[in-house]
Amino acid sequence: MVGGGSGAFIGAVHRAAAVMDGQIEVAAGALSSTEEKSLASGRELGLPEGRVYGSWTRMLEGELALPEEDRVDFVSVVTPNHVHFPVAHAFVKAGFNVVLDKPMVHTTEQAEELVDAVEKAGVVFAVTYQYTGYPMVKQARHMVREGHLGEIRKVIVEYNQGWLARNVEETGAKQAEWRTDPGRSGIAGAIGDIGSHAENLAATITGLEISELCADLTSFVPGRRLDDDGNLLLRYEGGAKGVLIASQISAGEENDLRIRVYGSEGGLEWRQEEPNRLLFKPDGAPEQVLKRGNDYLCEDAKNATRVPPGHPEAFIEAFANVYSSVAATIRVARGEQPGDGMAHDFPTVHDGARGVRFIEKVVESHLSDEKWTDAREHPATDGPAKVGKDALEGRNLSRDPGRSFDH
Amino acid sequence: MVGGGSGAFIGAVHRAAAVMDGQIEVAAGALSSTEEKSLASGRELGLPEGRVYGSWTRMLEGELALPEEDRVDFVSVVTPNHVHFPVAHAFVKAGFNVVLDKPMVHTTEQAEELVDAVEKAGVVFAVTYQYTGYPMVKQARHMVREGHLGEIRKVIVEYNQGWLARNVEETGAKQAEWRTDPGRSGIAGAIGDIGSHAENLAATITGLEISELCADLTSFVPGRRLDDDGNLLLRYEGGAKGVLIASQISAGEENDLRIRVYGSEGGLEWRQEEPNRLLFKPDGAPEQVLKRGNDYLCEDAKNATRVPPGHPEAFIEAFANVYSSVAATIRVARGEQPGDGMAHDFPTVHDGARGVRFIEKVVESHLSDEKWTDAREHPATDGPAKVGKDALEGRNLSRDPGRSFDH
Amino acid sequence: MVGGGSGAFIGAVHRAAAVMDGQIEVAAGALSSTEEKSLASGRELGLPEGRVYGSWTRMLEGELALPEEDRVDFVSVVTPNHVHFPVAHAFVKAGFNVVLDKPMVHTTEQAEELVDAVEKAGVVFAVTYQYTGYPMVKQARHMVREGHLGEIRKVIVEYNQGWLARNVEETGAKQAEWRTDPGRSGIAGAIGDIGSHAENLAATITGLEISELCADLTSFVPGRRLDDDGNLLLRYEGGAKGVLIASQISAGEENDLRIRVYGSEGGLEWRQEEPNRLLFKPDGAPEQVLKRGNDYLCEDAKNATRVPPGHPEAFIEAFANVYSSVAATIRVARGEQPGDGMAHDFPTVHDGARGVRFIEKVVESHLSDEKWTDAREHPATDGPAKVGKDALEGRNLSRDPGRSFDH
Amino acid sequence: MVGGGSGAFIGAVHRAAAVMDGQIEVAAGALSSTEEKSLASGRELGLPEGRVYGSWTRMLEGELALPEEDRVDFVSVVTPNHVHFPVAHAFVKAGFNVVLDKPMVHTTEQAEELVDAVEKAGVVFAVTYQYTGYPMVKQARHMVREGHLGEIRKVIVEYNQGWLARNVEETGAKQAEWRTDPGRSGIAGAIGDIGSHAENLAATITGLEISELCADLTSFVPGRRLDDDGNLLLRYEGGAKGVLIASQISAGEENDLRIRVYGSEGGLEWRQEEPNRLLFKPDGAPEQVLKRGNDYLCEDAKNATRVPPGHPEAFIEAFANVYSSVAATIRVARGEQPGDGMAHDFPTVHDGARGVRFIEKVVESHLSDEKWTDAREHPATDGPAKVGKDALEGRNLSRDPGRSFDH
Repeated sequence: MVGGGSGAFIGAVHRAAAVMDGQIEVAAGALSSTEEKSLASGRELGLPEGRVYGSWTRMLEGELALPEEDRVDFVSVVTPNHVHFPVAHAFVKAGFNVVLDKPMVHTTEQAEELVDAVEKAGVVFAVTYQYTGYPMVKQARHMVREGHLGEIRKVIVEYNQGWLARNVEETGAKQAEWRTDPGRSGIAGAIGDIGSHAENLAATITGLEISELCADLTSFVPGRRLDDDGNLLLRYEGGAKGVLIASQISAGEENDLRIRVYGSEGGLEWRQEEPNRLLFKPDGAPEQVLKRGNDYLCEDAKNATRVPPGHPEAFIEAFANVYSSVAATIRVARGEQPGDGMAHDFPTVHDGARGVRFIEKVVESHLSDEKWTDAREHPATDGPAKVGKDALEGRNLSRDPGRSFDH
Repeated sequence: MVGGGSGAFIGAVHRAAAVMDGQIEVAAGALSSTEEKSLASGRELGLPEGRVYGSWTRMLEGELALPEEDRVDFVSVVTPNHVHFPVAHAFVKAGFNVVLDKPMVHTTEQAEELVDAVEKAGVVFAVTYQYTGYPMVKQARHMVREGHLGEIRKVIVEYNQGWLARNVEETGAKQAEWRTDPGRSGIAGAIGDIGSHAENLAATITGLEISELCADLTSFVPGRRLDDDGNLLLRYEGGAKGVLIASQISAGEENDLRIRVYGSEGGLEWRQEEPNRLLFKPDGAPEQVLKRGNDYLCEDAKNATRVPPGHPEAFIEAFANVYSSVAATIRVARGEQPGDGMAHDFPTVHDGARGVRFIEKVVESHLSDEKWTDAREHPATDGPAKVGKDALEGRNLSRDPGRSFDH
Repeated sequence: MVGGGSGAFIGAVHRAAAVMDGQIEVAAGALSSTEEKSLASGRELGLPEGRVYGSWTRMLEGELALPEEDRVDFVSVVTPNHVHFPVAHAFVKAGFNVVLDKPMVHTTEQAEELVDAVEKAGVVFAVTYQYTGYPMVKQARHMVREGHLGEIRKVIVEYNQGWLARNVEETGAKQAEWRTDPGRSGIAGAIGDIGSHAENLAATITGLEISELCADLTSFVPGRRLDDDGNLLLRYEGGAKGVLIASQISAGEENDLRIRVYGSEGGLEWRQEEPNRLLFKPDGAPEQVLKRGNDYLCEDAKNATRVPPGHPEAFIEAFANVYSSVAATIRVARGEQPGDGMAHDFPTVHDGARGVRFIEKVVESHLSDEKWTDAREHPATDGPAKVGKDALEGRNLSRDPGRSFDH
Repeated sequence: MVGGGSGAFIGAVHRAAAVMDGQIEVAAGALSSTEEKSLASGRELGLPEGRVYGSWTRMLEGELALPEEDRVDFVSVVTPNHVHFPVAHAFVKAGFNVVLDKPMVHTTEQAEELVDAVEKAGVVFAVTYQYTGYPMVKQARHMVREGHLGEIRKVIVEYNQGWLARNVEETGAKQAEWRTDPGRSGIAGAIGDIGSHAENLAATITGLEISELCADLTSFVPGRRLDDDGNLLLRYEGGAKGVLIASQISAGEENDLRIRVYGSEGGLEWRQEEPNRLLFKPDGAPEQVLKRGNDYLCEDAKNATRVPPGHPEAFIEAFANVYSSVAATIRVARGEQPGDGMAHDFPTVHDGARGVRFIEKVVESHLSDEKWTDAREHPATDGPAKVGKDALEGRNLSRDPGRSFDH
């Protein structure tokens, strides 16, 4: 593990998720940004003395120095965003399997470089869009694929949070600090942190590609340097339409990721805060409430569960499914047969790259007077200008009187 | 009553709503589009023989011929949209109080003419945006006004239906026929029929004026001549942002009008399908579920209810509240003191006019390549071109390959 | 109408319900317990002068003095409980159709006398257990009858209220006063007022007869003279088991009437506070949410509705269904064909009599040390002793230290 | 760990729960009922070779043979019920800390012997009533203790399942087999398996002691030897009343453990299937929805959570809280200061003993014609006869025509 030292909330969640199914144990780590903290955190976790590293570069060297069968099976990177690229890139190039937090990297250039590296190295590479690890998300994906909804016409995906409704980054909240800092978070705030989850959820369930989008971002809280609210109109390849809402100033909301998908034959609805239920609304017939753990679900949904119906599973279990799938996939890659049906069911480097492009296109659209911004990986035309680093530097992100940070 | 003869669903609802509180009875009517049907419907309703009219013009003449104290106290107009203007305008000019279905009229020109007429005649004039008659909508309005949410930052208002997911207008559904016919419905389909309700609900609760909007309309069902789905980004005067979704192809949804409002201090959520509950989500404190009929609600919410908490009230009761407020207001105008606290709490001709402008601006935005369309009543600049009748005539509303009906 | 004068909440609800469908109008009344109030209330309602009576006996005389075709078509009796029997009995004997509030009368003797009178007179007689007027209750009844649940094994029916959690009868709440007064309410409090509704709901849906019951009643609020909480174990003919809970001290609850029924093939769940939904839980398949107004429902449920799916109907509409069915049944009795499919779908004098017996048996069980009290209409054995008036007089209903009012 | 070998669902859950917080690892085990399976399961789990035992007696010997500091810190016993007593008793007497599945043992005699042994040995001893590990259960307990509900008057606790609605024990379902076998499960079926959880939940939240109870048990499924449905009336010390429902034939229900508690000032409601929410219904004020992870909760609820609000926690996390509290308590016992605030917050041997007595009293009541069975630990009178082993042997548990398995 790289990052995730003492006090880092997300590191503990990654570890709880990783070890849940008894297949993974934390074997080595460079857990913090300074040598001192790294060593202290590693010891606190009870890592073997020789496998506690003071920095990720030392860890890379140290692990490479071991006989191949003694090295870590994969590296989990859970640092703040700006460190994602160098760490992941280096380990991939050295032939390690990697699990990386989202958003994958800061720019499309980095994303493309990483995709190349992963393909060349042939390693297993996962991005922890953990919400798609929920069994009922897999069931929703299955039902769309199998045509239970008919032709998809409309997607409404939302991620509403309220934790940044106040200026908490100036009152000592560590996570709020880096999340609202362009240097560490990248060019987007709410869109980067949670909009990217919404994008991934919609893409995972529907398989649709966004062709054009129209974004309106806002930074409501005075002094905030990145967007804390974003609303998007979406147009998909093939004609479906969509709305994506991502907000961190929706006071009173907690972690309200939800999606509705409508097709010509019916609709689906899923909410992360009640993850064990999936609503299916067939046109002209009673609404159905599908529940995790039941025999009537698809194989992917059944494989991704641990306890019987009615014994709820939740966030850490969804996270654990990403890790279990990585573990199974590594085993398959080694010629083993893990037998749990979990292999190859996690977000890949391509999901990660698409997420990075999404963030860039949203910011580009926000800054544009054009109604629609082409968001396809391979636009038919020459396509609009790149955003990325330059745009970030030139932007004045402070709140204007009309409250949107337009320029 | 004008319109609402045998078989017209909405006429029976208007009557049930009007008579509910024992203050109103149907005294006269021109209930259908032909003389024969009008007379038959009037007799079926048991109207006195001399007050059953064959057409609305005869009704106007007939009522004016009566001594003033014997005339109807007000006229309720529940015809298809294209008949709204001439009927309402004529009765207003003749000095009758009027209750008119929404959308009020087809064009801003008509709306302005009607506003003038109402102001000159000094009559009581209501538009039946009946959803704002729900007690918990009045409570939501109260809480926003009293500052319980702090400064309003964001509005998400939706109206999702699925009844037009199939081409029902070609299989004999009478209401579907006129709702999808530009000649009778006006320039917009879903936006005109239900988007206008969503606009009215948001405006009633928040009091905010839309300054700019960006719309994407679609006609998903092959052959349909008006939009059956619309998604909007909104910018409000003062800096709040919004999303408005109106769809009649959201298969599996029934009458899913809902709104969420977020301010700097908390959020509100209300759903028409569970109208007796209002969620209040104060930042940093437990969510509250406010319930109709309780002493802790505001006076307007308490006045607008009939039965104790837990005995649910619903659609017809909300509708009845519009009528009861009209009755109380007419009494006040006559110098009576109705004592039920209901006077002057209904949607007025100004709400109606704003709704008409909203529909026009949405269509204008949809047809525009500009991201933002100015939607203010009095734009700062010279403002964008009028849409209205001309645009309607020139548009080809059939479905293009990309499924939006753009030009 | 007898009873229901100014200020009586339930009278206004009865009237709103009766007139909703345009088939019934209030034509005459003896609306209060004194001549003066009766006349004032009648005038306030706008009744024709000659049909406002000072007492129910005068009304009976006055209506009988009219030519048969000018008399009221039926009499609605909405007085406090102790007046039910004499009024209903007299009008029935005189040949009038009657709608009577519940519980029908105070004792089984009265109930039997009334059943006899109704059968002899051949009149239409309804008891307003209005909750069974909800369309989704009719749907639940249909599904049980059609075997969708298999063999019924278990019933859990509850009616939880909190409005008597405090001693409101001593602080001027008029309804609380008579509801807690044995002289006017009868031998039971919560069991009589709302337990009887729960009994009727379970009996209507399942068609099962209670064979034995075991009751524990309590009077929690100091000074209260009747039970304010009751819990029952039920055994049904044929082997099903049940639990019935009725409470008026469940602080924080409003009007929480709900029922769950489980059979060998699946379960049903319905809640009065969300009356437009019915949950069906087939064993081994996804839960279904059936919603009012849809084509997939049974005929009785579809006939009993006025507005399309998603436009909620509620308490007054359920009440109106009882009146509409009475109106249709009277028409059928006259040889007309009302055509709305509503005839003969209301609670009858037999439901009323069963409800009275239920109340007596619950009190009998509560006072007994035997575990099971036979509750059948025709017990196999000689049966247990009668309760009724004697028991009431001899009981000390004040609260004992253990809080149950056993004596 | 004793028990919980390959294929045993609950063993894997115990392990996932135990290791979640990085404080516990499985160090040794006798995982199955035969030596062969035990060894195979231990190897599969990756236990060190010397710590895989063929039976629990060998494990006891083997661990005792190690230096004290190398022994397991505690033993987790997750066998079928009939093995609980000998294993737990032996390890306790040998001075090991023990975590034991529920119901603790089969008879009150065993329970008392175990209580004595634990008190003499001074070891940490927990019974995994894991549902009380949910943070919102801790919050409910806190609110009752702090008087937010006033004086407690009524408890409704239910545990509805449907998995035994069919005769699954005869179609190869391993868990159904032993759960319905008196030899392995004890004298009760649904009451023992899940009724005991309901009892523990109510006792934990309210702190009330049951003084008397009245039970009606049924075995609905033909051929089943133990009750699959039970309904109870409860009387508590101090005057509160209660209803307890436990069923495994409620077709369509999954794991519907829920509780409502009403006091003189308000009510509480919690459902295991949506464990992150707790409803608080103060009399006369809006209902509140308290949500896990928030600052406004009590310390115990906050200590027992891992992820921020809105990231749901569920069954395994609740289970993990029992283990974490045991770990913290063992540390405290050793003079360490774990610092997570979790020490001494788990169900003890006394909870276990009370649960065993509850099961016996329920069966005793079911077999009795007396309405009330004294259920106190120390009855005022000489008390009713013991049930237990004798009653079990003498009973014919097959289904009688009336479907209750009375005699």
